Amino acid sequence: MPKRAIPAQEKRGRPRSRRTETAILRAANELITSGGLADLTMEGVAERAGVGKASIYRRWPSKGALAFDAVVGGILATQPTPDTGSFEGDLRQTARSWVRSANSPRGGRTVAGLIAEVQSDPDLAKVWRERFVSRIRQERRPIIERAIARGEIPVGSDPEMILDLLYGPLYHRYLNGHLALSDSFAKELAHMVAAAAANGAVVRGREVLRSRAVR
Amino acid sequence: MPKRAIPAQEKRGRPRSRRTETAILRAANELITSGGLADLTMEGVAERAGVGKASIYRRWPSKGALAFDAVVGGILATQPTPDTGSFEGDLRQTARSWVRSANSPRGGRTVAGLIAEVQSDPDLAKVWRERFVSRIRQERRPIIERAIARGEIPVGSDPEMILDLLYGPLYHRYLNGHLALSDSFAKELAHMVAAAAANGAVVRGREVLRSRAVR
Repeated sequence: MPKRAIPAQEKRGRPRSRRTETAILRAANELITSGGLADLTMEGVAERAGVGKASIYRRWPSKGALAFDAVVGGILATQPTPDTGSFEGDLRQTARSWVRSANSPRGGRTVAGLIAEVQSDPDLAKVWRERFVSRIRQERRPIIERAIARGEIPVGSDPEMILDLLYGPLYHRYLNGHLALSDSFAKELAHMVAAAAANGAVVRGREVLRSRAVR
Repeated sequence: MPKRAIPAQEKRGRPRSRRTETAILRAANELITSGGLADLTMEGVAERAGVGKASIYRRWPSKGALAFDAVVGGILATQPTPDTGSFEGDLRQTARSWVRSANSPRGGRTVAGLIAEVQSDPDLAKVWRERFVSRIRQERRPIIERAIARGEIPVGSDPEMILDLLYGPLYHRYLNGHLALSDSFAKELAHMVAAAAANGAVVRGREVLRSRAVR
């Protein structure tokens, strides 16, 4: 469950309003986890949270926006950004907890369902990018910043590429199911991404510089 | 259009049967490309291909199976496995032609639509894995085998991991849309995967051996 769900709104809300928000997000998360996105209704959330529908609509204009905040809040609460003291350790813990969550019989396919919806709905796709993907990536940025500060990976290492190299293969197996999304895959993947970054393979513009030098 | 669509069936078919198959696959591919999977019907394919519906059902028991063969056939025909003489060159060409196809206004979102369908249909998911993902990956394996033979990457480099590291980030941006699926991303990604593999980061079990040595 989201302990702190939407930082921006939380800051300006009064304690009571914050409790209402938390109750709404928790109710939405529980409904999505048990029945999937298709079963989510504003009525159902209002009833479960013990609030009026107006209280929900005041904060979330659409079911999609509420769903994304509820799911991402749950992910950020149950999978905080790790700080193990090493780059590979942080990537490994990120990947392993992602895999555990994806394989969970309760709600493990929720994100797959959301991504499926997003493919045919451009409005939902925008909300998805802003409220889900970008927020989680922003939360993970310190992993890369700390690795650079510790000298584990070179200055100039591209955080977006590192996150794509880690999350891309995880999502790929999750959505395509061609190979096992296992704990050992998470560990190997984290090791490989860490090794690639340590070797400077993830520094942007390196190829460009190299071809310039050749000329 | 698929020049050779289903090798196994092609081998045993007589020339006329092969022409019928090609016509069916071409018709299905055209219908999917112009109208998406939702608009695909066996009737529509039969009419466009100039064959009876029985001719289709004899070869493909379901719309899903036909759709996958039609789309994968198109991909394998328009994006043959490159053989540029270098590992990075092969990965780059693979990634760039994938990106070009994904960004195509005509049919570029077809694969996204198929992946969306697959998330809520376990039978379709099985067909998807076997007829689509596994076939394309199998077709790309020589890229890795040749790189090992040329000594560009170490013996023991894991082909599955290399393909996941290349395709994962491509699919990730394609389905989530959080960052541009650009030609320069394809080039950088190919460069990074090639560099990682050349440095031995993609050799399986390396981590295990390393931790054993420490003990």
